[in-house]
Amino acid sequence: MRYRKIPNETVRRLPVYLRALHILGQQGKASTSSTDLADMVAVNSWQVRKDFSYFGAFGKPGSGYEIDGLKKQIARILRLDTEHKVALVGVGNLGSAVLAYAGFAPYGFDIVAAYDCDPKKAGKKIHNVTVESVAKLKDLRKTGINLAIIAVPESAAQQIADQLVQAGVKGILNFSPLHIQVPKRVKVITIDIAVDMARLPYYMS
Amino acid sequence: MRYRKIPNETVRRLPVYLRALHILGQQGKASTSSTDLADMVAVNSWQVRKDFSYFGAFGKPGSGYEIDGLKKQIARILRLDTEHKVALVGVGNLGSAVLAYAGFAPYGFDIVAAYDCDPKKAGKKIHNVTVESVAKLKDLRKTGINLAIIAVPESAAQQIADQLVQAGVKGILNFSPLHIQVPKRVKVITIDIAVDMARLPYYMS
Repeated sequence: MRYRKIPNETVRRLPVYLRALHILGQQGKASTSSTDLADMVAVNSWQVRKDFSYFGAFGKPGSGYEIDGLKKQIARILRLDTEHKVALVGVGNLGSAVLAYAGFAPYGFDIVAAYDCDPKKAGKKIHNVTVESVAKLKDLRKTGINLAIIAVPESAAQQIADQLVQAGVKGILNFSPLHIQVPKRVKVITIDIAVDMARLPYYMS
Repeated sequence: MRYRKIPNETVRRLPVYLRALHILGQQGKASTSSTDLADMVAVNSWQVRKDFSYFGAFGKPGSGYEIDGLKKQIARILRLDTEHKVALVGVGNLGSAVLAYAGFAPYGFDIVAAYDCDPKKAGKKIHNVTVESVAKLKDLRKTGINLAIIAVPESAAQQIADQLVQAGVKGILNFSPLHIQVPKRVKVITIDIAVDMARLPYYMS
């Protein structure tokens, strides 16, 4: 089931709330308020309440939101309540860092396949994943993996995206600053670290 | 001057609009509409118009927004109209990828210093930046650099953040999934690639 009425901007914030709830849980807290959550993720508390109201999560007066229940509810909406196998394309510095990244596990992501165009890398095992040649990308369809990470140079990004789409991938996390073109049925999220960095000077008085 | 009334969420979107305007400019366009911009950055067109209204940018009926002028206006608000020198801490796989990243230049960011705790890396030149020992972080203050990127393992991130703050850094781009504690005068933006990835399954029907 998909809750079609949730705006994109709310969907963007839901994983951020999830991370904040995760941190609060680790700190031993059982409940939290929209004000505390808002502080942690740098939005207004009315925004938190509005975002949660889209899926019917309302804090109780006095005690606020129960953390474990809210985490489960957000994970279900985001379809993070099942494990997602992920393919990585590009095992250079960035791709290697992605393979080493410990932050995926709490969301149920598991990188199980990695591809690189460098023949010298094929067959090598990096963080328990054996690197394969990009020529084998078309075999992705058989594996049932429909989520992929693109960590290749900008000049190769569109071509890799095309191959991933052909292999049945439905969601792409793209690290190239390129505006990747894909069919409407495929969702691309681009991480452009410069765009995130570009907010910093505004706040530096 | 700081436009104090611009909400954080609008400030977050401004660099995204800036990137979209940059792409449209490269495509040879001179003007654009809130609808086209909204499509590119996946928000509603009323959101675009509201975001721009905070700094008095209103599209003209019929012709919309003039791209060059809007780019300059957003850059000025975000203080991206001057060059910003940046220090990088941690030159492992991730840090090396950051040094190689070509996307910083359009925003005026220039990584001019890099630090690592590995003595073997000290003195090495990576992408025109000479790596120095983290012991020299305290000299940052003399350089006038007040923007830094943390690309160290999670276990070292807080300690490095403390040292950066002591050295006068006012803005930190943090790649560690850790919730870094800094004084209120310092702004931290955390890039957690898992959080961005966590939106994908929602859109994959």
